[in-house]
Amino acid sequence: MTLAQNDLDELKAVAHAVADAARVETLKSFRRADLVTRSKSEAFDPVTEADRAAEAAMRAILAERRPEDAILGEEHGSRAGTSGLTWVLDPIDGTRGYISGTPTWGVLIALSDEGGPRLGIIDQPYIGERFYGGPDGATFDGPHGSGALAVRETTALSEATVFTTFPEVGTPDEGAAFARVAAKARLTRYGCDCYAYALLAAGQIDLVIEAGLQAYDIQAPIAVIEAAGGIVTDWAGGPAHRGGTALAAATPELHAAALAILQGAL
Amino acid sequence: MTLAQNDLDELKAVAHAVADAARVETLKSFRRADLVTRSKSEAFDPVTEADRAAEAAMRAILAERRPEDAILGEEHGSRAGTSGLTWVLDPIDGTRGYISGTPTWGVLIALSDEGGPRLGIIDQPYIGERFYGGPDGATFDGPHGSGALAVRETTALSEATVFTTFPEVGTPDEGAAFARVAAKARLTRYGCDCYAYALLAAGQIDLVIEAGLQAYDIQAPIAVIEAAGGIVTDWAGGPAHRGGTALAAATPELHAAALAILQGAL
Repeated sequence: MTLAQNDLDELKAVAHAVADAARVETLKSFRRADLVTRSKSEAFDPVTEADRAAEAAMRAILAERRPEDAILGEEHGSRAGTSGLTWVLDPIDGTRGYISGTPTWGVLIALSDEGGPRLGIIDQPYIGERFYGGPDGATFDGPHGSGALAVRETTALSEATVFTTFPEVGTPDEGAAFARVAAKARLTRYGCDCYAYALLAAGQIDLVIEAGLQAYDIQAPIAVIEAAGGIVTDWAGGPAHRGGTALAAATPELHAAALAILQGAL
Repeated sequence: MTLAQNDLDELKAVAHAVADAARVETLKSFRRADLVTRSKSEAFDPVTEADRAAEAAMRAILAERRPEDAILGEEHGSRAGTSGLTWVLDPIDGTRGYISGTPTWGVLIALSDEGGPRLGIIDQPYIGERFYGGPDGATFDGPHGSGALAVRETTALSEATVFTTFPEVGTPDEGAAFARVAAKARLTRYGCDCYAYALLAAGQIDLVIEAGLQAYDIQAPIAVIEAAGGIVTDWAGGPAHRGGTALAAATPELHAAALAILQGAL
């Protein structure tokens, strides 16, 4: 069964309900002085109670309204399904930004079939801003209104604005490849977590390049950016929805130019 | 004449009116597809029409309500005054962020006497969030409420979150000194422009370290952070309000620890 055979209106309504629930839970702890963090590994990887509570709230809605669908979540793992559809959830993408009080972390929700993400939401609860992409197009809703999302038409790397979250992108080889792309771009900016993908879909920036991603980090951005007219692959030019590296671009020309440089790192 | 001799309520009301006017003007062009940028120099330094329009609107209010005060603005230069007070204006701090659609640029307004900034506002128009500091304390007002600002109590560099806008901070020596501080910190984040200073005042992060600043980049942050209990100096431990380098810290202990490392670059 594919997404096209399902009721898109119902799936969208569920996706928004899931995002609404995550918004409430994540805001309960955002900027709280006593925010609790734990480490998943030796590396600094803060995971807040808010992260776990938000995913639990998201899954409770899916358990009630979409019991036949599978779930893949960052915090609470996988639940098998029978529908062929999987909800891919990241309750707080950008936990380092979250614990620093920045407004660029987000809630990521994707609905995927065997071919990859078909529908996605990037939600920024503090700003109250939501970016949606699906079979019916790409839209945003924020504090100053709502409308359609569309990537811009930049084709030359020398005119492009490129974003990544950390200057140290992936492995040393990957980082060097990113630096080679950045050196040819007009402007390089850091630190926006998933919000950078939303800015690409909104036609504000041209490239987002990242490495070391999990599936739940990239599936919602893929759905939103593709619906807005952009392109997302891994650094080999193949599907990015299983995680690893990601190259998101506004146009095929820009994608090809960056890909040629990044492939030197593979 | 010093700020204390003036009517604080009136000065605050003017400061907020100036911020309100800048909010309207900066939002007119934010995320517009045809945003016009010009270069002030060979280096990439986008200056938008919004920047100039916003400062003109700010200055129009001051011309009417505070004709006796001096003005120092990023876009339209200096106007002399007779009161001993100077309004220091940066209509869009973080123009690179502004033209990229990020929500971390801001409007900066400071009111200074001969000793430095006494009252300041950091405003983020898109989020609708304002951070104020002055003789009567430090407060914020945002989409989820308002309240007092207070720095947090971090004293150890190993527990600190440090922000700067670009990984390449200032000169190569300055950048290397920043990297030595970052290497000892718990978490380093990039890209927040003036919003990082607001996060420090709000008790969300612990250090902001920058170089290559103008007076109008740092005066409002100084007023807000000092009113919230924090410390701002240059990298020599002296006054930062004339621009150059800046080290903003939540506590004296943290300031001393970072200063000792940064002084190696001087």
